Amino acid sequence: MTPAGDREADRRSVLTLSCPDTTGIVARISGFLAELGGWIVEAAYHSDPDSGRFFTRQVIRAGSVPGGVERLRESFGAVAADLGADHWQVTDTGVGKRVVVLVSTAGHCLYELLSRWHAGELGADIALVIGNHDRLAPVARMFGVPFETVPVPGDDAGRRSAFDRIRALVDGQDPDAVVLARFMQVVPPELCDHWAGRLINIHHGFLPSFRGARPYHQAHQRGVKIIGATCHYVTAELDAGPIIEQDVIRVDHTDSAAAMALRGRDIEKAVLARGLEYHLQDRVLLDGTRTIVFR
Amino acid sequence: MTPAGDREADRRSVLTLSCPDTTGIVARISGFLAELGGWIVEAAYHSDPDSGRFFTRQVIRAGSVPGGVERLRESFGAVAADLGADHWQVTDTGVGKRVVVLVSTAGHCLYELLSRWHAGELGADIALVIGNHDRLAPVARMFGVPFETVPVPGDDAGRRSAFDRIRALVDGQDPDAVVLARFMQVVPPELCDHWAGRLINIHHGFLPSFRGARPYHQAHQRGVKIIGATCHYVTAELDAGPIIEQDVIRVDHTDSAAAMALRGRDIEKAVLARGLEYHLQDRVLLDGTRTIVFR
Amino acid sequence: MTPAGDREADRRSVLTLSCPDTTGIVARISGFLAELGGWIVEAAYHSDPDSGRFFTRQVIRAGSVPGGVERLRESFGAVAADLGADHWQVTDTGVGKRVVVLVSTAGHCLYELLSRWHAGELGADIALVIGNHDRLAPVARMFGVPFETVPVPGDDAGRRSAFDRIRALVDGQDPDAVVLARFMQVVPPELCDHWAGRLINIHHGFLPSFRGARPYHQAHQRGVKIIGATCHYVTAELDAGPIIEQDVIRVDHTDSAAAMALRGRDIEKAVLARGLEYHLQDRVLLDGTRTIVFR
Amino acid sequence: MTPAGDREADRRSVLTLSCPDTTGIVARISGFLAELGGWIVEAAYHSDPDSGRFFTRQVIRAGSVPGGVERLRESFGAVAADLGADHWQVTDTGVGKRVVVLVSTAGHCLYELLSRWHAGELGADIALVIGNHDRLAPVARMFGVPFETVPVPGDDAGRRSAFDRIRALVDGQDPDAVVLARFMQVVPPELCDHWAGRLINIHHGFLPSFRGARPYHQAHQRGVKIIGATCHYVTAELDAGPIIEQDVIRVDHTDSAAAMALRGRDIEKAVLARGLEYHLQDRVLLDGTRTIVFR
Repeated sequence: MTPAGDREADRRSVLTLSCPDTTGIVARISGFLAELGGWIVEAAYHSDPDSGRFFTRQVIRAGSVPGGVERLRESFGAVAADLGADHWQVTDTGVGKRVVVLVSTAGHCLYELLSRWHAGELGADIALVIGNHDRLAPVARMFGVPFETVPVPGDDAGRRSAFDRIRALVDGQDPDAVVLARFMQVVPPELCDHWAGRLINIHHGFLPSFRGARPYHQAHQRGVKIIGATCHYVTAELDAGPIIEQDVIRVDHTDSAAAMALRGRDIEKAVLARGLEYHLQDRVLLDGTRTIVFR
Repeated sequence: MTPAGDREADRRSVLTLSCPDTTGIVARISGFLAELGGWIVEAAYHSDPDSGRFFTRQVIRAGSVPGGVERLRESFGAVAADLGADHWQVTDTGVGKRVVVLVSTAGHCLYELLSRWHAGELGADIALVIGNHDRLAPVARMFGVPFETVPVPGDDAGRRSAFDRIRALVDGQDPDAVVLARFMQVVPPELCDHWAGRLINIHHGFLPSFRGARPYHQAHQRGVKIIGATCHYVTAELDAGPIIEQDVIRVDHTDSAAAMALRGRDIEKAVLARGLEYHLQDRVLLDGTRTIVFR
Repeated sequence: MTPAGDREADRRSVLTLSCPDTTGIVARISGFLAELGGWIVEAAYHSDPDSGRFFTRQVIRAGSVPGGVERLRESFGAVAADLGADHWQVTDTGVGKRVVVLVSTAGHCLYELLSRWHAGELGADIALVIGNHDRLAPVARMFGVPFETVPVPGDDAGRRSAFDRIRALVDGQDPDAVVLARFMQVVPPELCDHWAGRLINIHHGFLPSFRGARPYHQAHQRGVKIIGATCHYVTAELDAGPIIEQDVIRVDHTDSAAAMALRGRDIEKAVLARGLEYHLQDRVLLDGTRTIVFR
Repeated sequence: MTPAGDREADRRSVLTLSCPDTTGIVARISGFLAELGGWIVEAAYHSDPDSGRFFTRQVIRAGSVPGGVERLRESFGAVAADLGADHWQVTDTGVGKRVVVLVSTAGHCLYELLSRWHAGELGADIALVIGNHDRLAPVARMFGVPFETVPVPGDDAGRRSAFDRIRALVDGQDPDAVVLARFMQVVPPELCDHWAGRLINIHHGFLPSFRGARPYHQAHQRGVKIIGATCHYVTAELDAGPIIEQDVIRVDHTDSAAAMALRGRDIEKAVLARGLEYHLQDRVLLDGTRTIVFR
């Protein structure tokens, strides 16, 4: 029942890289890995004709490279430099990842993440839950996860000080992901920048439709026949960050806005869980405002 | 291979009505039909708590009511008046429906409609195809359907005169539906009004996202993971009319805008065909800017 | 956070009926309800041309009928008799429903049901969880729900005695639904009969494909491109009972059988939750081995 | 309107290979292509942990390799031999592909393929349509495609001689794909072998459910909530060949078997068109009875 760590035999190095596209990149990288004796268990490549950039993700058995993850990381630096990489990293699945979750009053996404974590299926620890209300505190504590309440007042000064406190609490955990699980507060731009690439939101609408508040209400008013949810990285522009994952369900004239909100919860939590999983497994690379998701 | 008409035994009266909601409406209508001896083969009802309105669609074997469709229509008038109906009609499936299709250069929706018609599956005749280019003329003519070319120039006067000609051609057919099958021209507001409730568009985007031109290009730029198509009644406000049907497909980072456009054609034509079928079978009722679709 | 009961103003009578189809049934039922002054908030009807049977579900504000649910139930008996109903009931949403859940070692469906219950969204109490292993005992208890362990041995006598114990435990709760939430044991035919219409299973395959054990493994071997899950009533014939709800997800060649099992969990729990909700809201009527689901 | 050929600048070499998996394969292949100066525009790889086999598909600008497709094919032979390839080929998109279509009386799939071909979107020529009835002859001829009628009698001798005639007609076209577009006849095992890897069927059911005759009828009887269609390679065992593509739509209790058949046509034709497109673009590789589809 306790969250499972990876065992040594299952330990992997996960290499990701993006760089300007040119001929011979795959040969260069795969040649490098073959020389090191790296046993590749997953490999994905993408050349984007629009942006002219190349992306790859490679999963290598950690034990197959002498010197392990450290050695692989050190020696790959030269390859990345040759290729003019604007992003590269080698992560170690043996090092546990950490998540902080921000919530308000709606619990369905929090239950989902806590349940996955509790069942050992999240691939990360939930280090802390922060709420602007205390309504979900019993939920987190029932699962044995610390909960901090930080009310966010309406006035500017109060708001600023609340987010200072949230920032301190989050940064105290040094998380790999900061998840807005129906947090219902606009995160200040400077925090979006500070947590850039780690701040993940679930929006209860099919972006770019229905940005902002009450998306189900908007959807109902517009009379759409399909509603959706969107998991995306948060940037300073509201609901406009790079999309990681989306999903939809069919609705019809019998569904009121409230019924849509009820039914939408199922896709919100599924989309958030999948999006977070892709992020935690280093499957998501950025190409401007678009994402490459190597599933 | 020739378009099939309904045979007498299959003839149906289709009654639709919308009125303010109150208790006893179903009893009133079903009592009325029971008294007439009407054999109901399909019945659907909807009470909308938001708009406070009631909607129904009933399909009755024409032969089960003495005096047939005419008699039913006449006698139902009093019921509709009692109920304060703002819409009601009784149509006769024995009277063939007619469709005019407006196209530009993209043929996939036209092939779809012509094929269904040719196979006797459209439930209506395609009386005429009008193109602002002549590119698809051979397609219509191959199927034995008349094609008129009406170029739409860029200048106001030319445009006005082109749409006058289109209006005359369309009205000359007295159609039950005027279908914009990737017509790619903004229809003037007065024509939207003139054909209100009969003018149907297929938009190659998941409305209300990506209104206007080049929706696949917009979708690609925004990096969405799902694209869609929308069949809707056309109103004076661009791409804002009541939605009849929508559908979506999953895309990913490997799909360029051009690839999305190619893959999107399959849902465009399926969504248009379904939406048009609902319309021709009197399954669509209006509730303000929303639709009730009794499937 | 405690499970919410219906408040008096929200109390509803839910009337369901099935009977041989004939003309005038809707008039008879809606006339009856109109006379009583019943305020109908939902009404659904279905005439099945294949079975020649009629089905309806009506939701009435309990307070709108003088004498409430009891009076409605009593007076409707005569109507049901007139119509030759083979099934009819009037339930009271003011009377809480109860669920017993049977599990083995896989927890995802249990977490889902417990979370919904805990959030007050299940529309029923989870009275008891029974496991043939004790692995999920801490999960139930964390949520404050009693858990009983009843090992099911391989030998006939042991098996019989285990199911006697399970029967006693379940019947002690007089539940409205007995849910096999990945129970992984074949329930004896006599118990299927005993709990007929209340025994609900989630099968981790898209029935009727892949009945029996290891459906994801079977799906992988067959090379299907879409996998699914099925919520159904349990009958004596394995995985052949009436289907309540199904859903699917797309897979491809990169998904191993184990990956399919992981990804399939999301649809299993969503399909089970939806199917159970339909059942608890009396939305499911039986037409032989098929179901009418009034959504 | 005439089918478009690839222009020289768009000409591509498409290399596919499958071989036993081992370390260094990607390095070997990508190194080889880099040395030749091959400009890779698409590259996909898959290592299957279950079968222990490796698969790749590479699309190379034909003009980027001196000597073009021929030279690439010749020189790659040595690499394939080194890798112990059990399948490899280099095809030339400049060489047009050919398709023969077999039909019976249902036209929706035939209209779809002919429309795509006529619009220049099929990526192949439809050389001939063969029907066991002549009902669809006018459809093929309207599009300008030859149609041959070969009645298939019920007796063994007549059947054998009919399929001899079909074989001769098909082989006379030397097609890259033989498509059973709702042909409704069981193809003799020796023809399945003779056309192995080129014989493609659309089954109007979600395989492996509902094999054989009248799948919609079977689906209706079983009361499934989702129906589907399956495009697969034909092997001697009925409806058991490797699946290329599947898709589904939701149905409910209001859909009769006949309604399912009507609605199913839309997915049948879409699934067949996609499956055939994957085949014609050399995107499908075989791994025993499963397919790798590099989309």
